[in-house]
Amino acid sequence: MPRRLGIIAGGGTLPARVAAAAVAAGRFVFILGLEGFANPAVLAPWPHEIQRIGKAGRIFAALREHGCQDIVMIGAVRRPSLLDLRPDAEGARILARIGRAAFAGDDGLLAAVIRIFAEEGFTVIGAHDVLREVLAPAGVLTRVRPDAQAMADIERGRAVARALGAVDVGQGCVVQQGLVLAVEAIEGTDAMLARAGTLRRDGIGGVLVKVVKPGQDRRADLPTIGPDTVRHAAAAGLRGLAFEAQCTILADRAACVAAADAAGLFMIGLDPAT
Amino acid sequence: MPRRLGIIAGGGTLPARVAAAAVAAGRFVFILGLEGFANPAVLAPWPHEIQRIGKAGRIFAALREHGCQDIVMIGAVRRPSLLDLRPDAEGARILARIGRAAFAGDDGLLAAVIRIFAEEGFTVIGAHDVLREVLAPAGVLTRVRPDAQAMADIERGRAVARALGAVDVGQGCVVQQGLVLAVEAIEGTDAMLARAGTLRRDGIGGVLVKVVKPGQDRRADLPTIGPDTVRHAAAAGLRGLAFEAQCTILADRAACVAAADAAGLFMIGLDPAT
Repeated sequence: MPRRLGIIAGGGTLPARVAAAAVAAGRFVFILGLEGFANPAVLAPWPHEIQRIGKAGRIFAALREHGCQDIVMIGAVRRPSLLDLRPDAEGARILARIGRAAFAGDDGLLAAVIRIFAEEGFTVIGAHDVLREVLAPAGVLTRVRPDAQAMADIERGRAVARALGAVDVGQGCVVQQGLVLAVEAIEGTDAMLARAGTLRRDGIGGVLVKVVKPGQDRRADLPTIGPDTVRHAAAAGLRGLAFEAQCTILADRAACVAAADAAGLFMIGLDPAT
Repeated sequence: MPRRLGIIAGGGTLPARVAAAAVAAGRFVFILGLEGFANPAVLAPWPHEIQRIGKAGRIFAALREHGCQDIVMIGAVRRPSLLDLRPDAEGARILARIGRAAFAGDDGLLAAVIRIFAEEGFTVIGAHDVLREVLAPAGVLTRVRPDAQAMADIERGRAVARALGAVDVGQGCVVQQGLVLAVEAIEGTDAMLARAGTLRRDGIGGVLVKVVKPGQDRRADLPTIGPDTVRHAAAAGLRGLAFEAQCTILADRAACVAAADAAGLFMIGLDPAT
């Protein structure tokens, strides 16, 4: 009998796509939507419940009531402030177990959350273990192909994003003709793109580069690109998007490529080994 | 006879302070103010001329007419776009000699500019070679001292800023209780501080950390902190500023410390060797 799947859902439609793929594979699915992030309309077709992140006691209880064995965490979630968290008794105990990692980089925090789930008897798996086709393929996906200048910007951006990732900060940057316009910390990719749009220089546009951090647990928080990312990149005057194949979630590949083609942008999946 | 000094002046009052120190030491001084950056009122007391960055032919001619042998580059300058540059004939030849470095990180560009000055027969020296007391001293300069949390944030910020510096991007970041709120690329420290103010979480404030890049030529573009930096850090809700002693220009030390004391912020000069 297939293992029962619990989905911890943030924003966007990916939680529903993971649920649909799991159900198609014969699995039982229960979705725990995170209040303020999960869209109730997206979760509506499946057994689900919406809770605040801080109510860890209730979250574990709900997952157990539904017999969930595997856990997928998927969809955008912004790290809550401690005030917003308002933990329940179990949440406060878990915060104490997470300890200083709660205040560290994302990797440290996510690694701690995954460890807590394991200690509670759950197995955390990647969304891409359920929904394989969500991972970005290698190669150019769009009609427009990156030229030599764009490839040089991609290489520079990759070196910068990896240097940042090595100290557990951000996953992305914007490079225009060798100049690093913006680097991502906790403001998120969309805010960084908006900033890059105001900082860009005359001449040909820049490139958004997103990479997976060297120490990143791929079961959670893979770099994600969706149609909105493509539209924001176009609005910022960029020429294209580069990301690591098999290490990046394309939230809706067809819509991403359609948006890029409509705006004349390229999308390229890089070989993560190079 | 002391060598005659040419000062390539950007914004702020530092060019005038360098000029005053050089004149007090018996040197002849000529200031070449960069149009759009240098403040004519600041330059007024000294022999000076204001030119666009792109008019390199006229800039070299003016420096030669005044017999300048040593050159100091000091004061804030934003990298111009190619459109703003509108180079004269000599400027176009120099752009070609700078080549791809004009589009690379700041270090690459400044190293190329210093090389061009040397090829033209000038010797580029550091502003701190003329105005020694402009370099930040080691230790706490303010009434408030950083506590253990602040020191931990400073160490994290230093690791992040150094990782960025190693790929020739930015010189600073803001860290709050272990979380990196913002990382500086070309937007500049003040814009990064404003962003950090909108991203900061509840709890005790963050820390601004600025470091010198590992490969940075210290004759140009040392990290600079002025009273406005302190006021913007206070407005962003930060607790203090950390910078590397002997590798940071404090544009007006007394005014910086007064602004920090008034706002209850600390300022600490770190040993650059640690």
